[in-house]
Formats: sequence, C-alpha cells, structure tokens
Amino acid sequence: MRRKSFGNMQCPAARGLERVGEWWSILILRDALHGLSRFDEFQESLGIAPNMLTRRLSSLVEAGLLSRHRYSERPPRYEYRLTDMGRDLYGPFVAMLAWGDRWLGKGKPPLLLRHAECGRDFQATVICSECHRPIVAADMQYRLNYDPRDYNALGPRSVT
Amino acid sequence: MRRKSFGNMQCPAARGLERVGEWWSILILRDALHGLSRFDEFQESLGIAPNMLTRRLSSLVEAGLLSRHRYSERPPRYEYRLTDMGRDLYGPFVAMLAWGDRWLGKGKPPLLLRHAECGRDFQATVICSECHRPIVAADMQYRLNYDPRDYNALGPRSVT
Repeated sequence: MRRKSFGNMQCPAARGLERVGEWWSILILRDALHGLSRFDEFQESLGIAPNMLTRRLSSLVEAGLLSRHRYSERPPRYEYRLTDMGRDLYGPFVAMLAWGDRWLGKGKPPLLLRHAECGRDFQATVICSECHRPIVAADMQYRLNYDPRDYNALGPRSVT
Repeated sequence: MRRKSFGNMQCPAARGLERVGEWWSILILRDALHGLSRFDEFQESLGIAPNMLTRRLSSLVEAGLLSRHRYSERPPRYEYRLTDMGRDLYGPFVAMLAWGDRWLGKGKPPLLLRHAECGRDFQATVICSECHRPIVAADMQYRLNYDPRDYNALGPRSVT
C-alpha cells in the first residue's frame, strides 16, 4: 500500500525539532535539563566557541525554551534557566535516553535516573494516554486532522 | 549548587542523536515511522536532492536504523525499511510530537494518533517504569554510573 507523503509544515514533531534548532542547541538543552545554567558551565561542558554559544543561547531564549537572568552585576554575568516549555522536553529527552541505553548502551547505562517521588531508579516508558499500555509502533495508526480520510496503518513490520 | 559538566562521550541521549545524524536523517526517519519506504516517496515528501537523499539513506543503513531491499529488478529500485532499532524510535518520536502539540499546536494537533490495540485516539505519555506515574523533570535525580557520588537533584525550577 502506498501512502501519501508528508510535507514539513504540518508535522508537530518537525516543528518541534525546528524550534529546538540544530545540534549545539540540542546539547545545550540536554545540559540545561541536567541542571547547568551558567554560560561558563555550558562552555566547559561542550567545548563550544564563546561566540557560537552566545548565538545558540540567544536563539533558545528567542524560541521560548530558555530565559536569561543576570546573576552578577560586576562583572555582568548571566544564567539561562529552562522555561516551562523547555523543561517539558524532559519526557522526550529521557525517552531518547532510554532508547540509547537499549541499543547503544552495551548493558551498562552511563547515566542512572532516579524518580524522587517513588525513590527508585527507572527507565522512561512511553505509554498510550488512554489505555496506559506501552506504545509499540506496529499498533499505531494515524490520520491528518485536516483530512477526513480513514486512519492509515503504519508501514511494513520492522526487519532485523 | 554548581554541578559538574557533561562531556559528550558518555551521554546515551547524545550518542543516540549522533547516531541519528543530522536534520535530513531525522526527517527521513520521521517519514519512515509514518510508513514511507521508497526512494521516490522520501524525495517527494522532503523535496531533497537525490544525491543528498542517497547519502542520508546510506548513513541510516550503516547506522543500523534502516535496511535496504530491492523491490524491482529492472529498473533496479530499492526500498528502505526500519530495523527493530529504528522502529523503536517511535516512542521518543511520539513523545516529541506530543510536546509539539502542547506548545506549538495552537489547540489543533495536525496529526491524530490512534492506538489500534485500544481503539482510541491518544497522546504519548512518558512515565516512570517503576511507579508508572508521569515523569516531571522536577522529580528527577541522576547519577553517573561510573561515579559513586550521591544522586544530584535537577537544576532550578523552571520559570515562565
């Protein structure tokens, strides 16, 4: 069965990724989600050129993912805190992290996550909001919200 | 509280994203997760130059995310199917999609997902594998698996 193609304009995942920007922005957000906030911390963590870091931080502020706060008057120093929108990337981020552990981790995850609320180490699991079962690609269908056609099944089963 | 910085080498999310490659690769994977598989379909969907598409598809095959199959002998034509590893990106992908709907969707998600198993439209929810409650960044702690120090709380609360 052939399916129609997707442009880039209407896909929220693509729009989300566009908003996030490119590679440096992703790494800055990752560090911010781990608690880094100061210019110098990002620079040390990423080994990024200061002018590039300034540019990427500004674009993340403009995109609404970080907000800028002065924490020292003399000399002027800034920190960059996640907004609610930026912090909400934590879910997709740890879902990607769990994927990395499953497929690239060689049995020893380099980073352990603990859920303070239940006190246990955990992996992120992506579930259906309605039946609360884990999401498996083969069980999914989609339709375009601006198109009344039937739901489409996903493509051929995966192969190894 | 200051925290130590993260290099790029040990973070599975960064390694995962590196594996995924750059922007075109992400869009190709998105289309593959929506069921596209043929060279011409990707080209039509993305408006990408053929030589660039060939290069990105090869790198995704090399990375183990797609596998290449000939579906026509004369002329030779290939399709690219997700491997198990590639298809397992569906969870992080729909988690990112839900984020896009929440923050960029303006109330009308362009794409509706239905869970065939329960028959309902759903959003992806990221939960703790242990207590099954939704993950909120402020409740999370982490530690490096190769470092015996205590767990670190995440950074400052988000601001609006």
